[in-house]
Amino acid sequence: MADVRTVAGGPVNLADIAPVEGGVTAPRGFAAGAVHCGIKPSPALDLAVLAADAPASAAALFTTNLAEAAPVTVSRQHIERTRGVARAVVVNSGCANACTGTQGLVHAKRMAAETAAALGCAPEDVLVASTGVIGVTLNIDRVVSGICAAAARLAPGGGAEAARAIMTTDPFPKEHAVTVSTPRGRFTVGGMAKGSGMIEPHMATMLAFLTTDAQVPPALLRRALQLSARDTFNAITVDGECSTNDSLFAFASGAGGIAIDEDTYRALVDGLLAVSRELAIGIVRGGEGATKVVAVTVADARSVDEARQVARAIANSPLVKTAVHGADPNWGRIVAAAGRSGVAFDVSRLTVHVGGALLFEHGLPHDESAPVAAEHLRSKSVQIDVSLGTGGGVSATIWTCDLSAEYVRINAEYRT
Amino acid sequence: MADVRTVAGGPVNLADIAPVEGGVTAPRGFAAGAVHCGIKPSPALDLAVLAADAPASAAALFTTNLAEAAPVTVSRQHIERTRGVARAVVVNSGCANACTGTQGLVHAKRMAAETAAALGCAPEDVLVASTGVIGVTLNIDRVVSGICAAAARLAPGGGAEAARAIMTTDPFPKEHAVTVSTPRGRFTVGGMAKGSGMIEPHMATMLAFLTTDAQVPPALLRRALQLSARDTFNAITVDGECSTNDSLFAFASGAGGIAIDEDTYRALVDGLLAVSRELAIGIVRGGEGATKVVAVTVADARSVDEARQVARAIANSPLVKTAVHGADPNWGRIVAAAGRSGVAFDVSRLTVHVGGALLFEHGLPHDESAPVAAEHLRSKSVQIDVSLGTGGGVSATIWTCDLSAEYVRINAEYRT
Repeated sequence: MADVRTVAGGPVNLADIAPVEGGVTAPRGFAAGAVHCGIKPSPALDLAVLAADAPASAAALFTTNLAEAAPVTVSRQHIERTRGVARAVVVNSGCANACTGTQGLVHAKRMAAETAAALGCAPEDVLVASTGVIGVTLNIDRVVSGICAAAARLAPGGGAEAARAIMTTDPFPKEHAVTVSTPRGRFTVGGMAKGSGMIEPHMATMLAFLTTDAQVPPALLRRALQLSARDTFNAITVDGECSTNDSLFAFASGAGGIAIDEDTYRALVDGLLAVSRELAIGIVRGGEGATKVVAVTVADARSVDEARQVARAIANSPLVKTAVHGADPNWGRIVAAAGRSGVAFDVSRLTVHVGGALLFEHGLPHDESAPVAAEHLRSKSVQIDVSLGTGGGVSATIWTCDLSAEYVRINAEYRT
Repeated sequence: MADVRTVAGGPVNLADIAPVEGGVTAPRGFAAGAVHCGIKPSPALDLAVLAADAPASAAALFTTNLAEAAPVTVSRQHIERTRGVARAVVVNSGCANACTGTQGLVHAKRMAAETAAALGCAPEDVLVASTGVIGVTLNIDRVVSGICAAAARLAPGGGAEAARAIMTTDPFPKEHAVTVSTPRGRFTVGGMAKGSGMIEPHMATMLAFLTTDAQVPPALLRRALQLSARDTFNAITVDGECSTNDSLFAFASGAGGIAIDEDTYRALVDGLLAVSRELAIGIVRGGEGATKVVAVTVADARSVDEARQVARAIANSPLVKTAVHGADPNWGRIVAAAGRSGVAFDVSRLTVHVGGALLFEHGLPHDESAPVAAEHLRSKSVQIDVSLGTGGGVSATIWTCDLSAEYVRINAEYRT
């Protein structure tokens, strides 16, 4: 949690939140299982099932890309039909099942149906996610046998293998869990995510799965998920891309016995925030070719939207990202990116700090601070602060990574 | 011209247009001179003066970046005051004179005044441009001695040395000239440009200088410049960045004796288009780290703005650009970029061709075409065609380059 507090600095009340082991299966009432069924050419895990012991409250946010993948369409339909109840989610990596037409929809529905059969629930109680290459038809026979095998392996300690099974080019699995103490007792929130390429601020930027053993009505879970995603999963960018498959799921089993209502709502949000931040920043840290995590905070804007728009322009600028990679305190590229962001401000009131060192103020550079900023840029965690000086007092943070030659190598060689 | 016709395919009437030598000084009534005055650490040329023999009609388009550089501010003021008349433009490379405060404005005005003194005209008859590192104060003494030396070298054959003097990280100089035949006689259009980094579709993306010996009223020259820039300099992108210094200038000396009016206006536009296309595509070809030029044409949109918005999303996508670099016919990344562009369309009506090979139609891939597309992607000039299938019938083209590890190397090491 120390890392999250340092990098993010948000509203989470750390005194009531403590990290625990177990990832997505840390909360009571959940089990997971993962197998290699042969979608990936390597022997790595490529299929996982995450299941609740009984029907759970569920909420989800999906990609805004028009070219939405079949599993997104099917999951959207299922969660609408059940009005926010689900028993499980099935995920494969290695194949996105996107741009696969009617056949793709048939396959995604089949994945739900097979998982439902193994668990003894209705197909619409199962959500589906896929990640990997676009435009390749799923080898559905392998997937079906994988679902049977994964369902047979379901275990309360299965979170770690599930977190590995959802990876594509991710350099490391991303999982996290916390306990949240409230006057009514303690509940647990867990999660896992995969990221790497096609990461950008619009929903939803990746696959992520959150669980809690608190008892939460579906509508409240959905509201808490939207709020916690805004400053975490929706505030990161690796390359400005928005995938066809991005999905964020949350499940509440109620197995821990703590009921969430309007009085304890904030504790739920804090728990989701704590896990989501760790996962979201993990996605950036594991971004394709990334060597550093960069927090871009834009302050003194007139609105959160304007603060985010400027922060995103800076965070997505290839020139800023390469300068960070080269540990170059090139505030000029930061000023230029802010200047073309489309948000109006007075350049003579703009200030730029890198690692706390003032580099630009009153329209002029502070070259004497450059060595301090350059030293900061050599670290793994970079802080860029821009104040627009509008007098509006509003701020927002976007997390990104540097742009390295390795990003190009990965993406020039990924498919062929 | 064959190259321009193949890549661009626009409204230029090639029968009446013929390339000639001489670049920006090919038209009569212009002279140029360039020197090394010590702004660049290397012994390369770093200062140029382009002058008309007598007051000329002038038009200019400038960056839309809020952090506009001092020379942009001064040039904007000068051309407004003279209502479109100028005698010369002075350009330095190696230092952008941007984010340099009041001192920067003093220096830019001094550059105009010294050039005016050397030519015997008013300071406001001189326009100013700078390119290079942001936030560094000009060594004005060196610049002033450079202006004197460059003015002393002014020659009708000086276009080639001027084109070299405006380069920063450009791998080669960009100059072009054509003669345009009209029923009233023949006139000449010439030009030079510098590009490389910070290239994106919003005006103005680079420094470019156009000349003609036709006689053109300032208002008509401005209209023709805006029209010809729309599909050339404003239709290219290297990295989605918009510089603080982007400027496009056009000068008409009238020395060739052909008067342009509404009847011959189209011939002037065609001449400007022919030179601008060659220069604009040259900027893309010489983009930082570029190994290929990519034309992204989006057809059957409802409006030109929507066609361009989709084309820009594809042309600026790091995943598409790296796939092109790796000769990977990854139509999925093209579909995904179009899908997140913000323009509404029906994915089942979308088609994607690469090098004429159909890769995506009716929501499904055509994998049998992938080898043909991959072969096309190994060439230096790549054509991506996307049809939105809206029935609107409108199209637009954006030119970009691939994204290579070399781009990262250049930009991680440029300043420090």
